[in-house]
Amino acid sequence: MPDTLPDEIKTLVDEVLAGKARSVARAMSLAEGRSEQSEALMAELHRHAGRAHIVGLTGVPGAGKSTMVAALTRELRKRELSVGIIAIDPSSPFSGGAILGDRVRMTGFAEDDGVFIRSMATRGALGGLARASLDTVDVLDAAGFDIVLIETVGVGQDEVDIVQAAHTVVVVSAPGLGDEIQAIKAGVLEIADIHVVSKCDKPDAPRTVQDLQGMLHLGRPGKGDKDWATPVVPTSAETGEGIEDLVAKIIAHYDHLENSGEMEVRKRQILEMRIIKTAEDILRDRLMRERAGKLQGLLEKAYQRDMDVRAAARDLLGVVTELKRKGGADEP
Amino acid sequence: MPDTLPDEIKTLVDEVLAGKARSVARAMSLAEGRSEQSEALMAELHRHAGRAHIVGLTGVPGAGKSTMVAALTRELRKRELSVGIIAIDPSSPFSGGAILGDRVRMTGFAEDDGVFIRSMATRGALGGLARASLDTVDVLDAAGFDIVLIETVGVGQDEVDIVQAAHTVVVVSAPGLGDEIQAIKAGVLEIADIHVVSKCDKPDAPRTVQDLQGMLHLGRPGKGDKDWATPVVPTSAETGEGIEDLVAKIIAHYDHLENSGEMEVRKRQILEMRIIKTAEDILRDRLMRERAGKLQGLLEKAYQRDMDVRAAARDLLGVVTELKRKGGADEP
Repeated sequence: MPDTLPDEIKTLVDEVLAGKARSVARAMSLAEGRSEQSEALMAELHRHAGRAHIVGLTGVPGAGKSTMVAALTRELRKRELSVGIIAIDPSSPFSGGAILGDRVRMTGFAEDDGVFIRSMATRGALGGLARASLDTVDVLDAAGFDIVLIETVGVGQDEVDIVQAAHTVVVVSAPGLGDEIQAIKAGVLEIADIHVVSKCDKPDAPRTVQDLQGMLHLGRPGKGDKDWATPVVPTSAETGEGIEDLVAKIIAHYDHLENSGEMEVRKRQILEMRIIKTAEDILRDRLMRERAGKLQGLLEKAYQRDMDVRAAARDLLGVVTELKRKGGADEP
Repeated sequence: MPDTLPDEIKTLVDEVLAGKARSVARAMSLAEGRSEQSEALMAELHRHAGRAHIVGLTGVPGAGKSTMVAALTRELRKRELSVGIIAIDPSSPFSGGAILGDRVRMTGFAEDDGVFIRSMATRGALGGLARASLDTVDVLDAAGFDIVLIETVGVGQDEVDIVQAAHTVVVVSAPGLGDEIQAIKAGVLEIADIHVVSKCDKPDAPRTVQDLQGMLHLGRPGKGDKDWATPVVPTSAETGEGIEDLVAKIIAHYDHLENSGEMEVRKRQILEMRIIKTAEDILRDRLMRERAGKLQGLLEKAYQRDMDVRAAARDLLGVVTELKRKGGADEP
């Protein structure tokens, strides 16, 4: 570790690397923000991250994602793989808190050191959800979790971006949801490396499985990894059916990525996205800091229609980008 | 109009102000982007916008938003109010197209000059959904539509931000949706100026109405407009029940905003948000343009773990913010 690192952060890094749960939790809180401490911590942790298998799990509302995460975690634990979970939950725009934050279905793991669960709210004061959640992935990765699971609802650009920043993307579908849900679903299906159909005890489940297989048969646009045949795994949280198979497919996908060279491609794509999201986040912070200053005058001109929105935005940027970075952190 | 405006844009502006549908459509396409033409157009249109009543309509998937928009439009037309509609639809991350784009339920208005419908996809190559959709609001506003309706699904930060950039926010709830949907709903309810319950022909609808009233009775955090009592309007698209009442409430809210001085407050908040979103959008474009350049070297360092993500992001920003703006447009 560099000597310039504050002692407090040095200790925290050591404890995270040792997998101490309270320190991991504290590091994740720091990772969500961008204070000077946070910058120092993340710079150090980045050097120790890169070993975990990052799995993204998404699906439309009502698809049964949380139940699937619980079942999956149980199965991974049977195989003695440790699991760090980041669940991105819908949240109140006013309170900012995550609504599903308590994650009642996951309490079965409270006593298990091999499982760490973190709930993050979809709305923060400054945006930057993707940046913040992907930084917390580094913490769990550095802490030595074998699998880092990121769960998001598959609606909203940020949510889909986050889950795409995984090595393996699992999309959960449930039989018999409404029309609008089905339409939204279509947008998420294409990012899957593995499809799971939940609630296969329901009578219309075979139809859902067939539909997905039919879609895959027609060809899968965009992802460009021709050597992986996206499987469709029918499961039931009720009976436990298919969960073992799902874990096998997740591990098979990891092996495929490593053996085909595709892992390097994905890791670069993920890093590229993270660098861009982080740059956007830093700039957003700078813009927000101008709220009380330059923005007020521009706002008044725009309100009086003496200036249009884009001209005001460019002027605001002119001010913001003249700010110089002080020290290591970006004016926290 | 300034003499420096290209002739083509001058003509387009004149035609938009005259409400010519094809020109409005063309102007909206330009407004979504940020070409040089787009900048000139938006600067000019901004001076003519500001008269429309902007109404945001949102709700969770399955709440019946599209049906509500159709019923609402029909009722507004009865009152001889013209309606411009921007529907933000879920879309494919690969094709980029809007999945509900055809808007089959709205075809009843195809022959009506007093109704203009535009579907926008939630995912574009460069993000910036909020900026793009709010710029198209200016086009419809300048074109003289009395009401501009923005419809989004109430999941995802962008989607909620967009609908909050309206003078009046209508949140649609439906009885009897699943648990996860209910949890997501809680995050959207707080932004409502008017609650609508759809599908009130269903037996569990009175319960939904009561729940909303109960929640409002407990106090409504954050919005800060103490003089407006948020109504709950039960409706049925089947029977037409409540739609007249909903329109009356929307107009009453407009009158309230104008008479209380709250409209000025909201207009300033909306402009502030738009300026910030536009500044973010310009910077995102600049960052993306660096993809082939500076970013590659930083990415490689980050991949080799010689540099962490935040340091790479700051370096990238250093390059991007040194770029100077050329002419009126931001290097389009």
